Amino acid sequence: MNTLSKNIGLYTDFYELTMAQGYFLCGKQNEQTVFDYYYRTNPYQGGYLVFAGLQDLLHILKHFRFNKENINFLRSAGLKEEFLKYLLDFKFKASIYSIKEGEIAFPNEPIVRVEGNIIEAQLIETLLLNYLNFQSLIATKACRIRYVLGDKTFADFGLRRAQGLGGIHASRAAVIGGANSTSNVYSAFNYQIPVTGTQAHAWIQSFEEELDAFRKYACINPDSTVLLVDTYNTLKSGVPNAIIVAKELEAEGYKMLGIRLDNGDLAYLSKKARKMLNDADLDYVQIFASNQLNEYVIKSLNEQGAQIDGYGIGTELVTGKDTGALDGVYKLVENNGNPRLKISENIEKITMPGKKKLIRYLDKDGMFFRDGILLENEKTTDRLFHPFHSNKNTEMSKYTSEELMHKVMENGEILIKNQTPAEINGYLQKRFAQLPEGHKRFISPHIYKVGVSSNLFNLRDQMLENIRSKIK
Amino acid sequence: MNTLSKNIGLYTDFYELTMAQGYFLCGKQNEQTVFDYYYRTNPYQGGYLVFAGLQDLLHILKHFRFNKENINFLRSAGLKEEFLKYLLDFKFKASIYSIKEGEIAFPNEPIVRVEGNIIEAQLIETLLLNYLNFQSLIATKACRIRYVLGDKTFADFGLRRAQGLGGIHASRAAVIGGANSTSNVYSAFNYQIPVTGTQAHAWIQSFEEELDAFRKYACINPDSTVLLVDTYNTLKSGVPNAIIVAKELEAEGYKMLGIRLDNGDLAYLSKKARKMLNDADLDYVQIFASNQLNEYVIKSLNEQGAQIDGYGIGTELVTGKDTGALDGVYKLVENNGNPRLKISENIEKITMPGKKKLIRYLDKDGMFFRDGILLENEKTTDRLFHPFHSNKNTEMSKYTSEELMHKVMENGEILIKNQTPAEINGYLQKRFAQLPEGHKRFISPHIYKVGVSSNLFNLRDQMLENIRSKIK
Repeated sequence: MNTLSKNIGLYTDFYELTMAQGYFLCGKQNEQTVFDYYYRTNPYQGGYLVFAGLQDLLHILKHFRFNKENINFLRSAGLKEEFLKYLLDFKFKASIYSIKEGEIAFPNEPIVRVEGNIIEAQLIETLLLNYLNFQSLIATKACRIRYVLGDKTFADFGLRRAQGLGGIHASRAAVIGGANSTSNVYSAFNYQIPVTGTQAHAWIQSFEEELDAFRKYACINPDSTVLLVDTYNTLKSGVPNAIIVAKELEAEGYKMLGIRLDNGDLAYLSKKARKMLNDADLDYVQIFASNQLNEYVIKSLNEQGAQIDGYGIGTELVTGKDTGALDGVYKLVENNGNPRLKISENIEKITMPGKKKLIRYLDKDGMFFRDGILLENEKTTDRLFHPFHSNKNTEMSKYTSEELMHKVMENGEILIKNQTPAEINGYLQKRFAQLPEGHKRFISPHIYKVGVSSNLFNLRDQMLENIRSKIK
Repeated sequence: MNTLSKNIGLYTDFYELTMAQGYFLCGKQNEQTVFDYYYRTNPYQGGYLVFAGLQDLLHILKHFRFNKENINFLRSAGLKEEFLKYLLDFKFKASIYSIKEGEIAFPNEPIVRVEGNIIEAQLIETLLLNYLNFQSLIATKACRIRYVLGDKTFADFGLRRAQGLGGIHASRAAVIGGANSTSNVYSAFNYQIPVTGTQAHAWIQSFEEELDAFRKYACINPDSTVLLVDTYNTLKSGVPNAIIVAKELEAEGYKMLGIRLDNGDLAYLSKKARKMLNDADLDYVQIFASNQLNEYVIKSLNEQGAQIDGYGIGTELVTGKDTGALDGVYKLVENNGNPRLKISENIEKITMPGKKKLIRYLDKDGMFFRDGILLENEKTTDRLFHPFHSNKNTEMSKYTSEELMHKVMENGEILIKNQTPAEINGYLQKRFAQLPEGHKRFISPHIYKVGVSSNLFNLRDQMLENIRSKIK
């Protein structure tokens, strides 16, 4: 397979290229545009999104090119010579404004804004959506898991069930959202994530006796032994054998790290195993658990008093089950200085025209209170309006405000410095603490309010009116 | 980001490496093993799986290496010098037996078998699962969509909502399962898939008038014009403007290809649009539809008599909604000639020991009747037994049989020739026609029976007995 890094220009939907060719052949290539990235629905029926994927996106945009082989392919797909010549010299030189990676975001507010000529801004649509939608989906899932886990550790174990190469970004996003480590060596290598892993059933099965398999593993890894205890029978064979090995390690001056349960009723088994370990004076041996876990199962295990010190979480974490895809979109909102609107049969899908800024208002305790969408040239606003009902509005002057979008790319060059996923999680932790509890709960979370300035409200309404009167 | 193709050895869970190191340090590196790949549950509550991903897997295994930078990383992760030296020279030289790509498969039957030394067979576990689980998941989804579509065309439109780089394999698998084309240019380029795409709302919005946007597009692409008609108002603006442009194209000797609906009630809008087009003598202009489609929505559109000629299907196709992940596993079944078993608290998770073959039995009409799992050294079997109830069994001698697994890799070299996704779909079509209808329906599909030979049944029962008596 051809590597993606040498063919980034092709990582797009074909219509971006047919449109770009159209703009070029119509002589529109120097028209300046503004596109907004936003999403419509919180994943997991939750109350918020954790924004992720920005750093990867900026790095790939920096290398967005078409090589000669790509051009030949696009010729065979029907693009025209004049435009192919343009593509061969193409570089992405737009500016990008974005909220910070690890920021908490809400539906229908612009969180990334691309300003560039119509061709460059159009060509990157698919790539931008592909990168931001997925990492935000997974970072949000990880954040929900972290929320129920408190200070316990959890590792991403998902690569085998990830959606193909999606596993690469999933592991990064999992750590942004709150995972402590990953089993995915490639992502650990790429993104400076702590890597973790000990043994599978195959290790145990490859020896005649479970006890022998445990002993051999402990002998090779005396400092980091975690024994998988469910290959034959957890309580009758696995845990008793693990206790024998822990005692043998003790005799040599080592402390066994833990055992792992991967099967059966984790609440019951963990409590029984804890008691067996404690009765053998092995209070320090930790109990890890894996097997089809998610935030709901962990919440239930907590409620049942399960004795689990750390978790390995795979499938549901890295595939963002049950949502599976964030519905982020990328819409043209300004063309050559003129605001643009898209209408829809579905009123909530009508876009917000014009170049805009995003303001977060904090209450006196520093907690998030409202977000406000303003036109870019507005300094501030006294009042925020419900996006569709002007009679619902709030006086804002007494609240502290922060501007959330910052310039992160200019003329195709990255303006922000690289951060590790753990560093980004540090920012998320700070922000998550500012999010009121009502928005964090899993069942019917309180809806965080996002308002618009009167100027933006009126601009959209006037444009709507104009278009509708033209249609009639 | 480092490219995957140069770092394939790292595309694994860390425990594969800690186990491999353990095997090496225990002197087990020349032990010959057999691992089975199989899955447990049909995706989408359906009745079958379409197996996919094999060709990509074999190509990446051929290049499975650890470079010096990888070794340095693994050193920092705690692996030992002796083993790192071994890894630096490591090449995958095992043999692989597999069912054909595009074959129909069923739960709990071995569909891929890896025979090699314990280190090489262990190291590839994660990679194998990652590749086969995901492509099979998506090919199966596409096959379900194809099933309700009959001869109508459908294109994969999913890249923007795909799980990150998972979109690359998703598009390939979509075509294996039945999609006619993809919007994903990178996958089209890599896998020789027809590429498709015309315009988004941004194209329309970038012009002052919808009619002008349509005219400009048609002028540039007179042979392949598909106009997106829902930017402002489908029936009052989009379709009437499309009719004007179709007539203008006619005057110049061209035929407009179609219009696309991306919003609202597709059944209603398509019927209205069809009538408007026909009333203008534009019967040849096709109607395409997109927007949150899946096999259930399309079935319902069919039942409502929607007038849709082709579909663009995105999110649910490329993410395999609602299943999200195939639960395929990779289990050690033989070690140095000795069969191996893993027990579970959950009886259905007990593995099938030994080196095995997979036989498909056909009825007199050539339709699939039963699958049988036999020990590799059994030529045939007269009777197939339910895997857990020996009193449920069937006489098989009157049925034609086919052996489904073939050697596809030997000593690390690929033995099969490359096929395009469309060619693989050709094989699927043939096989899908042999699958009785009852297994294809979406609601409570009939369960396809997979039996075992008496020898295999007895081998497993005897091993179970031995282990259980040892535990007591």
